[in-house]
Amino acid sequence: MSESSVLRVGLLGFGTVGSSFAEVLAASGREDILITRIFNRGVERKRSHERAKFLQPEVQWIEQAEGVIEAADVDVVVELIGGLDPVGGWLRAALKVGKHVVTANKQLIAYRGPELFDVAAKANVQLLYGAAVAGGVPVIPGVAQGLGGDEITRVSGIVNGTCNFILSSMEAGADYGEVLANAQRAGYAEANPSADVDGVDARAKLCILTRLALRAEINPDEVPAQTISAVAAVDFAYAKELGCTIRQVSRSQKHGDKVQARVGPMLVPTTSPIAWSHGTQNMVVTKGRFGGDVVFSGHGAGGHPTAVAVMSDVLAIAQGSAAVRLPTKHAEVSGEVSAPYYLRFIVADEPGIVAAIAGVLAKHHINIDSILQHRGHESERLPFVVTTEPCSSAVLEEAIAEMGAMPFMLEPPLALQILVVDDKDTD
Amino acid sequence: MSESSVLRVGLLGFGTVGSSFAEVLAASGREDILITRIFNRGVERKRSHERAKFLQPEVQWIEQAEGVIEAADVDVVVELIGGLDPVGGWLRAALKVGKHVVTANKQLIAYRGPELFDVAAKANVQLLYGAAVAGGVPVIPGVAQGLGGDEITRVSGIVNGTCNFILSSMEAGADYGEVLANAQRAGYAEANPSADVDGVDARAKLCILTRLALRAEINPDEVPAQTISAVAAVDFAYAKELGCTIRQVSRSQKHGDKVQARVGPMLVPTTSPIAWSHGTQNMVVTKGRFGGDVVFSGHGAGGHPTAVAVMSDVLAIAQGSAAVRLPTKHAEVSGEVSAPYYLRFIVADEPGIVAAIAGVLAKHHINIDSILQHRGHESERLPFVVTTEPCSSAVLEEAIAEMGAMPFMLEPPLALQILVVDDKDTD
Repeated sequence: MSESSVLRVGLLGFGTVGSSFAEVLAASGREDILITRIFNRGVERKRSHERAKFLQPEVQWIEQAEGVIEAADVDVVVELIGGLDPVGGWLRAALKVGKHVVTANKQLIAYRGPELFDVAAKANVQLLYGAAVAGGVPVIPGVAQGLGGDEITRVSGIVNGTCNFILSSMEAGADYGEVLANAQRAGYAEANPSADVDGVDARAKLCILTRLALRAEINPDEVPAQTISAVAAVDFAYAKELGCTIRQVSRSQKHGDKVQARVGPMLVPTTSPIAWSHGTQNMVVTKGRFGGDVVFSGHGAGGHPTAVAVMSDVLAIAQGSAAVRLPTKHAEVSGEVSAPYYLRFIVADEPGIVAAIAGVLAKHHINIDSILQHRGHESERLPFVVTTEPCSSAVLEEAIAEMGAMPFMLEPPLALQILVVDDKDTD
Repeated sequence: MSESSVLRVGLLGFGTVGSSFAEVLAASGREDILITRIFNRGVERKRSHERAKFLQPEVQWIEQAEGVIEAADVDVVVELIGGLDPVGGWLRAALKVGKHVVTANKQLIAYRGPELFDVAAKANVQLLYGAAVAGGVPVIPGVAQGLGGDEITRVSGIVNGTCNFILSSMEAGADYGEVLANAQRAGYAEANPSADVDGVDARAKLCILTRLALRAEINPDEVPAQTISAVAAVDFAYAKELGCTIRQVSRSQKHGDKVQARVGPMLVPTTSPIAWSHGTQNMVVTKGRFGGDVVFSGHGAGGHPTAVAVMSDVLAIAQGSAAVRLPTKHAEVSGEVSAPYYLRFIVADEPGIVAAIAGVLAKHHINIDSILQHRGHESERLPFVVTTEPCSSAVLEEAIAEMGAMPFMLEPPLALQILVVDDKDTD
């Protein structure tokens, strides 16, 4: 910190979150934290941003990131641009010259966290990232400072607000394509929604949570991610009959030396807190050996909630507070789990279909738990559902491939894991 | 910390939480944290405690607290005894001689926190108390480290597990006296349950949350607390009809320079997360100006969850992490709120009762929202309910006093605040 006891912030990015951070900082009335420099492309346009009024007139607008990273009048670099490159190199350089770093960059922390934490430790500065997972929900500091004393065996959550918005709207009757288009118009979803709906965003967040909660380093690329785009209205109707709804769940749990990790749409019992998230809400549930289940929930995204997380990290640095960082181990990801499954088929109806499907499942020693077929669907395009008793996901995949090749199958079968609520837990 | 980089812990109290802490520490496998001394009365009995096996054989058992507080081989004093005196003096002395302190003592932190924080700051040591509110739920570090950047305007919660166990059991059909007796047999409730059921315990916790979240110092003695012991089975039936359940809610919110604070049984809409806590679960909901509502929930009490909070605080100290501590202001408590109310009367039925009650309410300009009277009750002892539109609690109290004096009234009327779920919030 500078001699004057003012913590000087250099901001990388003055978009939604960056400008919200300026507003939250101004509202705090704190005179010991000051934004001195802002890097952004197209500085002239940003100068006239409606939230630029929250900045001090002396702030310097800069079009080269180096002009912030290496500036003598910057103590903390706040990075709100995202992506691995060139941002990763910038932050590494900033840490090396002794700047603290606060970032909302989930991909960077997921893929290169360990390396950057080491650089920070060597330079005796802080690298904080409370905004990288679940935005305004303090799950990162909550787990780091508050659950370090437990042995967490599982972490599950809803960490992508866009998917939760889409799925909870579908639960209320909306159509996938329609609600995605609405979300895009409202700015909740990108023009290319793949990072959200295909689980790439959630996967990075799950890896960060896995490092912190399970103290295991896993590679995001190894985590299986299933798209939500195959989930249809009929699945919500069948899920309801099973006492469930459907959510994009990110989940990892210890399994010997490995970590079972997965992101994808799952059937969630309506009695589980995970089913309670609506709209763009986020929720994370940890399961501790000694403390049991702990739930964190709130607004995961949006400029203001994310800016609260950024501001809280900056305040922690201003206070000289260092984050608790426990040792982690590298772990391999096991995509295989043993779980009950929901299988939905769309078939051209003909005699013998149930027998054929049941035959394949029997051959793979997968027990059927229930068969559901609602009235009122056309027999040329008939959706029906089989739920299974717990079985190996690897074995199930073989069975699915076999069933998918059957001539009456009009679409690839949809297989969704069914979350089980443990007796003594809320998750 | 000692030169050997081992953090040496002196434990005050080897009861349920203290012995659970020993177990959690042993399970962590950390060799850099060591319990060197334990103070407890009746040391001989404690030495043979089943969890004494988790201690190092070299641990010293001591019957004088000074033998821990001032010992050269203690870096952190962990206090798990409770109460204001003599513990307050012991911890003050420990801080003064440069020991860090970790405590689960809610009364001490509520009543004497500011003074003790100052002593700690002067001695450049940490005073951490994550276990003082909501045990295993990391609401203290979560709010301190993760929500410092927001302006929190309200904090509400379920912070007394015993009351939640009693009320959620009553919701499921149990009788107050019966469930209290069960809770006492199971060890959830004290032989004298007053601290729990009358809100004294919750009030201390609410003051700690108010300091941290609203950054306001309030006097626990000024916070109105209403007992849950007047709530009867019939109230759950009427609450259900109103789409609500009943919980002991602790709640404070900013109101100009004052803080509106209150502890007591309230009607909670079943759509509010506060209604979702069952059994001994705890839940805290903060409402932030920028970040919106954040929910923390989990196991609030019990040896192991509380020990997780203690262990997390000890780990933070071992890591050299200092807690974020934001400036607070003294604030007066205003017990007065404007809220809708649930009024339940037990009367000896006769003509004109509704008219008489309605007349008193009209005289005080309190609008009736609904009148509920279930069939099947005896007319000599008839319970019925009036709900009001939002009104001043002070005005309501006058009306209640007037109605309570009416000759047909067999019991003092029961008035419960009805929590309102805001449009855009979860709380």
